[in-house]
Amino acid sequence: MIGAAGGLVGDQGHVVSGTTRYLATGFPFVWKSQLWFPLLVGSGTVAVGELRLRIAPVRARGDWSDGLAAIAAVLAIYAVTALVRGRPLGPGTVLVAGLAVLVWRALGASTPGAVCGLIAAIVGTTTEIVMVAAGVFEYADDADALAGVAPWLPALYFAFGVVAARLGELLAPQARPG
Amino acid sequence: MIGAAGGLVGDQGHVVSGTTRYLATGFPFVWKSQLWFPLLVGSGTVAVGELRLRIAPVRARGDWSDGLAAIAAVLAIYAVTALVRGRPLGPGTVLVAGLAVLVWRALGASTPGAVCGLIAAIVGTTTEIVMVAAGVFEYADDADALAGVAPWLPALYFAFGVVAARLGELLAPQARPG
Amino acid sequence: MIGAAGGLVGDQGHVVSGTTRYLATGFPFVWKSQLWFPLLVGSGTVAVGELRLRIAPVRARGDWSDGLAAIAAVLAIYAVTALVRGRPLGPGTVLVAGLAVLVWRALGASTPGAVCGLIAAIVGTTTEIVMVAAGVFEYADDADALAGVAPWLPALYFAFGVVAARLGELLAPQARPG
Repeated sequence: MIGAAGGLVGDQGHVVSGTTRYLATGFPFVWKSQLWFPLLVGSGTVAVGELRLRIAPVRARGDWSDGLAAIAAVLAIYAVTALVRGRPLGPGTVLVAGLAVLVWRALGASTPGAVCGLIAAIVGTTTEIVMVAAGVFEYADDADALAGVAPWLPALYFAFGVVAARLGELLAPQARPG
Repeated sequence: MIGAAGGLVGDQGHVVSGTTRYLATGFPFVWKSQLWFPLLVGSGTVAVGELRLRIAPVRARGDWSDGLAAIAAVLAIYAVTALVRGRPLGPGTVLVAGLAVLVWRALGASTPGAVCGLIAAIVGTTTEIVMVAAGVFEYADDADALAGVAPWLPALYFAFGVVAARLGELLAPQARPG
Repeated sequence: MIGAAGGLVGDQGHVVSGTTRYLATGFPFVWKSQLWFPLLVGSGTVAVGELRLRIAPVRARGDWSDGLAAIAAVLAIYAVTALVRGRPLGPGTVLVAGLAVLVWRALGASTPGAVCGLIAAIVGTTTEIVMVAAGVFEYADDADALAGVAPWLPALYFAFGVVAARLGELLAPQARPG
């Protein structure tokens, strides 16, 4: 649910800024997104959270304000990717990548977090490249330098993966030590 | 004094970026602001700081570098609200709201801080809506979607309230335990 | 090496955004920068790191993720200075200055760090003013308000100095106590 709602909030930024445009027809829209988008982001959030719990035991505890801050951080980066529309891609990509690293560091700089971030970056970017190639949606002409998608996209997915992993940790059933 | 100076620094950003424009006449200007503006922000800072001390005892100690960082954070967000001028309001608002949550978290994620932030958001936004309706100043046509003011304004005031509360804590007379 | 690579990444943002332009001829280019630029930034990074170790003993330990986050932070600010191109200089400068203070605070708010940042700000900005006056390169007409260079330049160099000092601490030979 968190992932789906966050996906809707972030995606409307890309649509209203003209960064991305939906091409396929026949899907109902939710706000500015086609229905499958929030479902995909929501499932991805759950999948990454599950993955995190399978990789390694959860050590870093936290409270709900950690989760809120993690969600705020990734939505802020998502908004930045919409706001740099029309600006040179080089510094925009450097900014998003730098922020993604800072989010990873602020959320504990953990190895499992980095693994989840890298997997999200690879799977998410590849999925979007395939969907763009299939004509489902497209990036604007000045933001499609990475095989049809934006060059900052892997960094955005990395931050998403790190945050989803952290949410998985926070929502995990609390195993009490012996 | 800190609040008044900070208000001047932030407001010049809104004026030079064309986000806001003063309409009323008969007030002397200080830098880019009409005289009443820094007085109002300064008084508001003191009021929120006082409010913080009345809500709950101060627990989190800190030094002057905490205060400096808190001021830097809210001025940075203030500057962002000027720099997103002309960009879509959706992602601009998401960015400012995300940053406001991150500031609250970085300053301790305290309940009294959140209360001060919410009160500042409600009182500040309402005051500006009334002043815009009274013709004292106005927001640009592409930044007035929230009853005449910008939709990111409550988040900016929230961050202001959180920071003013933190300054109140830091400047409070140090009650020595025991 | 880190400084030289970081300089190249940051400088391409200024060149592609049109913030700065190289005027001198006869130098080979590396990516978007003239050869002397990464060499100068690399030497400056080493010099500030050395300076840090001479000012005061190193107390705050850290691991490589601290260094990575410090580099990410200064590159993110560097990117912001390219992305605010064409926007009013007032809020752009406030934003960069605020971020520089936050980086200093996040890296420990240390006095030696602040000293290194201030020296970097003075030496770096002065050097660029002299080079602009000598016709080696130039800032865009709408970004040269500070004696020919951008008004956010001292804050960018301050952040650079703070980060280089932190890298010096992290890479210092570990003197074991006792």
